Amino acid sequence: MAVRAAVAGASGYAGGELLRLLLGHPDVEIGTLTGHSNAGQRLGALQPHLVPLADRVLEPTAAEALAGHDVVFLALPHGQSAAVAEELGPDVLVVDMGADFRLQDAADWEKFYGTPHAGTWPYGLPELPGARAALEGSKRIAVPGCYPTAVSLALAPAYAAGLAEPEAVIVAATGTSGAGKALKPHLLGSEVMGSVSPYGVGGVHRHTPEMSQNLSAAAGEPVTVSFTPTLAPMPRGILATCSAKAAQGATAESVRAAYEKACADEPFVHLLPEGQWPATASVYGSNAVQIQVVLDETAGRVIAISAIDNLTKGTAGGAVQSMNIALGLPEETALPATGVAP
Amino acid sequence: MAVRAAVAGASGYAGGELLRLLLGHPDVEIGTLTGHSNAGQRLGALQPHLVPLADRVLEPTAAEALAGHDVVFLALPHGQSAAVAEELGPDVLVVDMGADFRLQDAADWEKFYGTPHAGTWPYGLPELPGARAALEGSKRIAVPGCYPTAVSLALAPAYAAGLAEPEAVIVAATGTSGAGKALKPHLLGSEVMGSVSPYGVGGVHRHTPEMSQNLSAAAGEPVTVSFTPTLAPMPRGILATCSAKAAQGATAESVRAAYEKACADEPFVHLLPEGQWPATASVYGSNAVQIQVVLDETAGRVIAISAIDNLTKGTAGGAVQSMNIALGLPEETALPATGVAP
Amino acid sequence: MAVRAAVAGASGYAGGELLRLLLGHPDVEIGTLTGHSNAGQRLGALQPHLVPLADRVLEPTAAEALAGHDVVFLALPHGQSAAVAEELGPDVLVVDMGADFRLQDAADWEKFYGTPHAGTWPYGLPELPGARAALEGSKRIAVPGCYPTAVSLALAPAYAAGLAEPEAVIVAATGTSGAGKALKPHLLGSEVMGSVSPYGVGGVHRHTPEMSQNLSAAAGEPVTVSFTPTLAPMPRGILATCSAKAAQGATAESVRAAYEKACADEPFVHLLPEGQWPATASVYGSNAVQIQVVLDETAGRVIAISAIDNLTKGTAGGAVQSMNIALGLPEETALPATGVAP
Amino acid sequence: MAVRAAVAGASGYAGGELLRLLLGHPDVEIGTLTGHSNAGQRLGALQPHLVPLADRVLEPTAAEALAGHDVVFLALPHGQSAAVAEELGPDVLVVDMGADFRLQDAADWEKFYGTPHAGTWPYGLPELPGARAALEGSKRIAVPGCYPTAVSLALAPAYAAGLAEPEAVIVAATGTSGAGKALKPHLLGSEVMGSVSPYGVGGVHRHTPEMSQNLSAAAGEPVTVSFTPTLAPMPRGILATCSAKAAQGATAESVRAAYEKACADEPFVHLLPEGQWPATASVYGSNAVQIQVVLDETAGRVIAISAIDNLTKGTAGGAVQSMNIALGLPEETALPATGVAP
Repeated sequence: MAVRAAVAGASGYAGGELLRLLLGHPDVEIGTLTGHSNAGQRLGALQPHLVPLADRVLEPTAAEALAGHDVVFLALPHGQSAAVAEELGPDVLVVDMGADFRLQDAADWEKFYGTPHAGTWPYGLPELPGARAALEGSKRIAVPGCYPTAVSLALAPAYAAGLAEPEAVIVAATGTSGAGKALKPHLLGSEVMGSVSPYGVGGVHRHTPEMSQNLSAAAGEPVTVSFTPTLAPMPRGILATCSAKAAQGATAESVRAAYEKACADEPFVHLLPEGQWPATASVYGSNAVQIQVVLDETAGRVIAISAIDNLTKGTAGGAVQSMNIALGLPEETALPATGVAP
Repeated sequence: MAVRAAVAGASGYAGGELLRLLLGHPDVEIGTLTGHSNAGQRLGALQPHLVPLADRVLEPTAAEALAGHDVVFLALPHGQSAAVAEELGPDVLVVDMGADFRLQDAADWEKFYGTPHAGTWPYGLPELPGARAALEGSKRIAVPGCYPTAVSLALAPAYAAGLAEPEAVIVAATGTSGAGKALKPHLLGSEVMGSVSPYGVGGVHRHTPEMSQNLSAAAGEPVTVSFTPTLAPMPRGILATCSAKAAQGATAESVRAAYEKACADEPFVHLLPEGQWPATASVYGSNAVQIQVVLDETAGRVIAISAIDNLTKGTAGGAVQSMNIALGLPEETALPATGVAP
Repeated sequence: MAVRAAVAGASGYAGGELLRLLLGHPDVEIGTLTGHSNAGQRLGALQPHLVPLADRVLEPTAAEALAGHDVVFLALPHGQSAAVAEELGPDVLVVDMGADFRLQDAADWEKFYGTPHAGTWPYGLPELPGARAALEGSKRIAVPGCYPTAVSLALAPAYAAGLAEPEAVIVAATGTSGAGKALKPHLLGSEVMGSVSPYGVGGVHRHTPEMSQNLSAAAGEPVTVSFTPTLAPMPRGILATCSAKAAQGATAESVRAAYEKACADEPFVHLLPEGQWPATASVYGSNAVQIQVVLDETAGRVIAISAIDNLTKGTAGGAVQSMNIALGLPEETALPATGVAP
Repeated sequence: MAVRAAVAGASGYAGGELLRLLLGHPDVEIGTLTGHSNAGQRLGALQPHLVPLADRVLEPTAAEALAGHDVVFLALPHGQSAAVAEELGPDVLVVDMGADFRLQDAADWEKFYGTPHAGTWPYGLPELPGARAALEGSKRIAVPGCYPTAVSLALAPAYAAGLAEPEAVIVAATGTSGAGKALKPHLLGSEVMGSVSPYGVGGVHRHTPEMSQNLSAAAGEPVTVSFTPTLAPMPRGILATCSAKAAQGATAESVRAAYEKACADEPFVHLLPEGQWPATASVYGSNAVQIQVVLDETAGRVIAISAIDNLTKGTAGGAVQSMNIALGLPEETALPATGVAP
């Protein structure tokens, strides 16, 4: 089987990571690559680490350029994916790495994104209950946000087992690639090295309703989320420190058991041995997720912490994993299980 | 006035930062410097940035070496300060940069440190209610922990104004110097660069009861603290993200007003203009504290975030500030008001 | 004495570092601050570490705004300083932190900068032979480039003593602040963290003729320079690794002796004890220069290595040091002698 | 074909990187893993990024434990490989990742390592003239040092083409993993972040004679090497800036042509398009080598710069590449062609 894949938005960090993974995919042939302001340039000048694709030239992003492929990955500004998907037709697998089709609640979408809601596609986080089945054979995939990936995998087991109260408090650290390649002063190396700083504080970050949606589904009741993202001096990685008041009757044993069960059959989600904590370096460049959980009996809270690579499991790896499921390929194909460390 | 100061533990990071500040203090003359395993070495080999002291040689830490000074700073392993202070006598100002005399509750001390409680000294965080008065003329000062400094300054205003419920949730990122110069594998540069990782999770970090003590005093009722520290890839800095459920009736305006009032007369604590957030880089090498606060109305929480330099305001700067007060010197003497950025 | 100083270009890294130093200068009062694209903004939004100046507002850069001061510091794009200096008149001390007046050879200027040569001002590297005398009482100062500062201090002693052949080979690493706040893709944090890369290779970097000028003056004959700058993942600092073939008869002892003599009376230049090597961290935020030298007898080369902070001794500290000399103030005023480490 | 491989020294950085690569090798089955002070521990506690091997337990390093494998990789302190190889017998492929068998000149070995010379094995840098043929079918491989890998690939083409004088000047920056996991104060994260510093200056670094050996072979005459290594604040990567006086008659065209020819058929060595320069980030985690060269006509020098990942192409990747050749497997098997960036 040879799957022909196109990538719209190949010059950005998500597109670059996707191409790194697809280069190692035995069933995928890399087709058209497109860009916006970078159209016409050699990929080697934009993504010098992608050696085998150095001589490829970016085409302008347009449905004609993307037609004729089996899979089309979209890394476009929000609000643009629906029109492209429409033109590609129902038989092409469209994997949207943007936010357009993640949220089920139109009001949430409009409040946080300010444009009309385009709809909801099968959600590309196979580890959530029911998600894998919805992806099988699907022609549309909404790849989750990087923070919601880390947070949902960390807290869903507690909510699914009824061990946590429905008010989650989350503080996450992200590497700078999460902010993309946009030229903004606060993203300069001189500014980020040696500094940790918060942004989007107080309930305004766009990933907040997506987390709430996932955790509410796991809990079977609405879960409110207090989310504070912080920018850390590293290129990649998310560490999500998540907590909630422990439900009445929760014990250290019941918490541990719930997580062991939730992670048991997942190829990429690893509950660490007790006493060992996640580190973003351990999952650098890999699709792995490290999780640890503990019950703080004095404070009465469940503390669950996860580490992912925001570009791999948090974006491009999640996209490939979901594509594999949709196409009926082995789920782990082309996805690194080991991090690049130190 | 010439105050003669000795430093026990001059080869570590806290001792080095203290010496950097004391070198700029117009009223202080630097006397004996001691070390433990490094006794006999030139300071220039251990702290090459302290150029004017390069030829000083460390003496072994012993009361005789420390005698004959007006002020003695102690940066010793916990449990050792009481005996040294005893030998120095009641007329010498002893500034303990360790934990021995911070906690008021003997049971807390014994639970977290495992040795008998030595007592409680005036607490060197002048910004807390009543603290400045207790420091004036005192001959004993317990310098606060770095995390409790950041957290107490961030949350005490909300508790003092009755705006937050007594269950605080805190996630903090620290630079690696907070862990000292101990040779531990996880502190190697190869391990920490590119990585954020938690440690001491679930209520076991020793700074937890100190935070609880300070916030409870501000609230006038017991405040429980859920505290998760994380190690970030930078040499210095603490960013503390602190939150608690908003008390009934709290509004964005009342929260802002409480913080404006609390910070108004403090020389080192700066409430940022609305919309601007703290960054550890902004306070690098300085005694300044940046604070911002917001009410997340959807999640119903007050979010207060502070940034300090863990070695300056969090340790050595706090020590000098308190010494200045104890000696009747202008409080800001020798304390940098501006960070070294970028 | 109260010297009133204006700063043109206060929003950049050089301007920010200058203001950090001037805030600690007992004889200077900070007057007008100007910017170009940032005119009208609060300095607190642009330079959040400069707490005491947070409420200052930038004016547009124009001679009228800069008039009425005793000293005017210029951090302008090259080619603009001459006109401003002209308008300010001969009685104002003008300190040019740009390149306009550094080079003596008009052909060199035109080859490397592409505009007509504006002239040559007294060169603000007091440690070079004759430079201090030329600065005393001067009303014009050309602040050296950051690389030429590091390289000239490292190699001039060898050339002045006739110990090196006139072909220098220099490889230097710089922190990212050396490239300024310009929004360029290769300066994003995601790109620079974890990466060392060269630029301006092969004799094309603009600081090359300035190094050659300084080393030739020391040698008394033309010295060619092969210079390769590299960008390192740190905000500040230059490490310059400089070498040249040893002259006939040079010995380890004669090399050491030449450097001891050259550094003996310099307040900021420190020849390290044998066996200890410079590190940029040791001079972080300080005006100090660390130097070490060795004779590699197998390769037949003198290797001299220096470390400076590119923003302090390499730019703003050098500017203040030269201003102090020009105004007859103690040379070390307001210049940190100790680095901020770790 | 199933090749059974043992790794002696699996807890270090070189051993960890080797295992990361071998996990992706379709023809290799990972057998015994040994350690010294870490024997008896789970690999998951020591190398948490190697998820699929987390439950493996290290055995003590001893010939019995290593027997019964087709390939044995040795990452041992120098001087220990000969005895182990002897015991393993002539039919086992022994790949020495240490220095023991790299040098041809016994006097060089004894001068730099201080122990008797054990001999010389086929040298695992297939890109050097004649090296690939010597590796085919060999049962012994000496993996090159990381710096000699970067330097030899950068300069050998110039020497082989007679374009450079036989005195090379090299300054290289390395990531901290090159220093291994040893607990030394200067390798602490607090010390290395924000700092570039030299070490082993003046002809004393042990990789110097190895570089000289390789470049002399390329030149057909003795080449002296002046080598200065520097430690940079990143976990991985080497940037080697290499230069030599241009030979009479060398032109920009002849230099470019020599490098194009040398790199034309090499799967991992990439001469970049003119104007684009190597960056360590581009080869992070990959076996690729980026090279650029230029003739500085003013200084009369050829400047060749290479970037590698010190743990991949510089150690473990080079080992796997040579093993593939020795075993008759496709040379590129299991070796990442793309870097992990940003």
